[in-house]
This record gives sequence, structure tokens and C-alpha cells, in this order.
Amino acid sequence: MPVIYDRVALIGLGLIASSIALAAKRAGCVGEITGYARSSDTRDTARELDLCTVCDTAAAAVRDADLVILCVPVGAMDSVMAEIAPALKAGAVLSDVGSTKLSVIAAVEPHLPESVHFIPAHPLAGTEHSGPRAGFAELYDNRWCILVPPEGADRDQVARLADFWHALGANTDEMDADHHDLVLAVTSHAPHLIAYTMVGVADDLSRVTDSEVIKYSAAGFRDFTRIAASDPTMWRDVFLHNKDATLEILGRFTEELFALQRAIRQGDGDHLHAYFTRTRAIRRGIIEAGQDTDAPNFGRTPGGAK
Amino acid sequence: MPVIYDRVALIGLGLIASSIALAAKRAGCVGEITGYARSSDTRDTARELDLCTVCDTAAAAVRDADLVILCVPVGAMDSVMAEIAPALKAGAVLSDVGSTKLSVIAAVEPHLPESVHFIPAHPLAGTEHSGPRAGFAELYDNRWCILVPPEGADRDQVARLADFWHALGANTDEMDADHHDLVLAVTSHAPHLIAYTMVGVADDLSRVTDSEVIKYSAAGFRDFTRIAASDPTMWRDVFLHNKDATLEILGRFTEELFALQRAIRQGDGDHLHAYFTRTRAIRRGIIEAGQDTDAPNFGRTPGGAK
Repeated sequence: MPVIYDRVALIGLGLIASSIALAAKRAGCVGEITGYARSSDTRDTARELDLCTVCDTAAAAVRDADLVILCVPVGAMDSVMAEIAPALKAGAVLSDVGSTKLSVIAAVEPHLPESVHFIPAHPLAGTEHSGPRAGFAELYDNRWCILVPPEGADRDQVARLADFWHALGANTDEMDADHHDLVLAVTSHAPHLIAYTMVGVADDLSRVTDSEVIKYSAAGFRDFTRIAASDPTMWRDVFLHNKDATLEILGRFTEELFALQRAIRQGDGDHLHAYFTRTRAIRRGIIEAGQDTDAPNFGRTPGGAK
Repeated sequence: MPVIYDRVALIGLGLIASSIALAAKRAGCVGEITGYARSSDTRDTARELDLCTVCDTAAAAVRDADLVILCVPVGAMDSVMAEIAPALKAGAVLSDVGSTKLSVIAAVEPHLPESVHFIPAHPLAGTEHSGPRAGFAELYDNRWCILVPPEGADRDQVARLADFWHALGANTDEMDADHHDLVLAVTSHAPHLIAYTMVGVADDLSRVTDSEVIKYSAAGFRDFTRIAASDPTMWRDVFLHNKDATLEILGRFTEELFALQRAIRQGDGDHLHAYFTRTRAIRRGIIEAGQDTDAPNFGRTPGGAK
């Protein structure tokens, strides 16, 4: 594969950045990769894994980079930009992987040098694990990366960034920031908050012990615990930075939940049956679109991990 | 392995019953297995799969059986019992696999011949698939089956039923019906209703299309769709028959969700971070207890099913 960017800088070296580094090396689509993480432990781990050329400041990592990707929690975008803006190369592309887009744009734009192309992006991929050791080259295979180019963005630069994500294994789409934040509130942010809530409730009941919850989790609950094990800092920032859309979806969710609770209280079996039948179709669509496996229980080994 | 019951009858031939038949054959712990399903299609499928000796009435299936297991939705227990009670053998054990226990006991006891040992049970295992073709012999391996023997139950018969479940691969525990229904409301019933609700909300939004929800589901939502694809009839019955405990847990859930929504609205990041940190411990407990895999994304093939 031809080199798409000579020099790529990753700011933040967690699951997402380390997977970008591994997928880019697999593809052979970049020359050099530099990286920086605020924590010296993370930098040491990244060096040990030989993920990229690890620098001791963010400014050093971005110097001469043709593509800079901000891979930090969305709450850290503003301070990172203050640090790197003076060191960005004229003509460079600046992108990110943040789960919210309106807030990232608001944090980045005030610092943006005029000569830099800012193209926000969000790869919809991840796992419940975090840190540089959690990364793997296949993370983006057949997943979607949403590009959110601002009005008047240089179309050649947008196409090149899309090519980079294709080289990493992903499909790409374009969306405006507002719509992105709403779509993600539905497909990601509200589900995560709901999972965190359900796991918190189970942990907090005095009449059911944690040990009972754990032993008997295979009846459905364990599915919730996976996403409720995701990185707390990242998710705190997501909710604080996509407040409006998340609260809107949670409002709709509560309304619907109350309607189902009323159906249970009133013994309205037809309402419940019709509702539960409708939701099966969405699952089928996801499997047909290659976004999940049809194997029972996600293909977990029968009997669980021993 | 020695034969534990000479003749076992399965009433209902869906995922749970067919997995019992396959696991019992794997173990060699029963003589003959008979079975009955209300739908002639299901009976034909079971014959084709050679799951067991399929009878054309429930009464014929239970005649001479030493163990009869009711594997029908909990809403059908009453009518099934009316049908089979006169045909039950004196000294036989009658059990079930229903997800609710108070309501099953209330449905079964009025029909129960005095000479029959009734020992309700609930194996905590399943998948999102249903019907006789969905069964597999490993379904119960390392899962828990909860026995709910009534006061004064014959302890030898309880031990023998526990041995049967051990032979199928499961661990067993005992609980009273009331506590069972509360534990299951937390670990299963509330999570299922919440998953159904979230999937329904996503399906119903006018500003986000189903196709967007499907394409971008890997960001978290797809985990909810698996359990929201479960059998609608079974789940309608579960909610109608564990009304009180489910509504109690949903009440706690809503309270907690409102507290997190308020933290988001007020920008209280510390509250969110502390909450999200606490829920990680439950996930670790589940993995250590062998009730789920630690592989990222449940060990789904990277890139999803193509």
C-alpha cells in the first residue's frame, strides 16, 4: 500500500491510539508514527511495546507531522490544543477520535492556526479495556469512522483522511456535528449510561448480595457489565460534553420505560408482546450489516471462561 | 455415569428443553426421554432432530415418567398442569424451568396429585435464539440451576434432582421462591426490559434512521439488541408473572438514572466518575466467577460477522 501520510502524530496513547498505530503498521500506510501521553507510565508502556516514537512533550510529537490525531478524553482537548497549536506544521491535517463532536470543535477551533486543516472524526470501535496494551490491529476492521468536516473544508484533505481510515480497515461516512452527536447519543451514550445505572443498582441492593448478582449474571445482566466496565474518565467526559443529546434520548427512554411499566402493572400482555416482537428486527439488521455476530451469546465459549 | 432417572418427560420442546435432552444424552444419565410440544411444527422438528420420543399429547408424554420437566412459558403452566395432572405417575418428580417461581408454584399446586414430588427449578442459561433447533448440549456447563423446594420437600428427591442438573453440567443452589424472584428481577428481568426499551427507542426516533442505528451499533448499542431479540412470548409472560419484583427493581433503576441525569445536567463530573469506577468491580467479579469471558467485546471476531 502506498504511504498516505509521511508522519503521523498520536496525542494520547490509549486503546484507540495504540490500535491506530498497529493498524497503520499492518497497512504500511504511514512513514513514521510519533506519540505522546501525559502519563509517564503510559509513555513507558508504549515504548516497551514499540508502538511508535514516543516523545516527552506533545509539542515535540506533533512537530513536522502531516497528520495529528487527538486521542485524549474529550474533556482534555482544550488543554492539549493550547499545548500543540504553536508547533503544528503549516498544511498539516488535524483530526481527533472524540465521541462527541460539537464540544470537540468548540474546544479546538479557538486554538487552530489558519494554515492547518481541521477534520474532526470519530471511529465507532472500542472494547471495555483501556490503555496502550489493550490495542490491536483489527479493531477498526469493518467498523465505521464518521468524518465531520467543517463547511468549506479542503475536499482533497477529507478524501485523504478517509483513505487513511480505509487503510486501517474501516468504512467512512460524513455527517454534520449536530447529527453525529444525536446518533451517538442513541447508539452509544444513552446505552452506556443505562448499563452503568443497572450495574450500580444491582451493586446497591441490600436484599440481594453482590455474590448472588455475580453468580447468577448469565441470565442477562452480564451483558450490561461489559460496557459498564469501560474507562470512567472517558465516559464522564462524554456525558458532560454531549449533555443535550444524551438527556434528550434519556428523556425518550424514560417515557417509553414508563409505558412498558404501566403495561406490566395493568397486565397488558398484547402491548408487551408487540413491543418485544418489533425489537427483534433491529437485531437482524445489525447482523445482516456485519456489525455483530449471530452466534448465540455473542459466540462466547459455552460454559464461560473457566 | 449411572442412570439418574429411567424416564424423563419434557413438556415444551424449545431451546431449554432441547438443550436438556442433548445434555442428558451427552451425560448418559437418563433411560428414555419423551417430549411434547403444543405446536405440531415443533413436534415435527423435534422428531427430525431425533431429540426424544415425541408424543402427540402431553398426557401421553408424562405417563410412566420418573421426572417431568415443564419447559413452557410461565403463562402456560396452569393449562399444561390441568392436562397432565391425571396422568402423572405416583412417586414421580415434577419440576420446571420457569423464570419466575412464585407464579409457577401458584399455577401448579392446585393441580398437584398428593403422590407427586413438586420441586420447582430454574436453570440460569439461555441464548437469544429459540425453538428446538437452538438447543445444544453445552448450554448448562458451569451455569447455575436454582432449586426452589417447598417446605417439607423430600430431601432425597431434591438431592436426586440436583444430581440430574450436575450431570447436565450445571451447578445448583437452593433458594426460596420469593428471594428467587427478586434475584432474577435484578439479574435478568429488569435488564431485559431495559434492553427492549432502549432498542424500541432507537427504532422509534424520527431524526435518526434505523439504518444509522444499525450501521453505527458497534459503539455500544448492539450489546442491548442481543437480549432484546429473545423470545417475545416467554418474556411477556415473565414480566406479567414477576410483576412486583420487576416493578420494584425498575423503580430503583429509575431513581438511580434520574440521579445520574441530574449529575450530567449539573456538570457533576466527580459523581459520574465515582459511579463508573464502582461498576468495574462487578464486571471483574463476574469474570473471576467464570460467568463471562474477559476477551474484549465478548471475544467477538474482530471486524464482526461478514
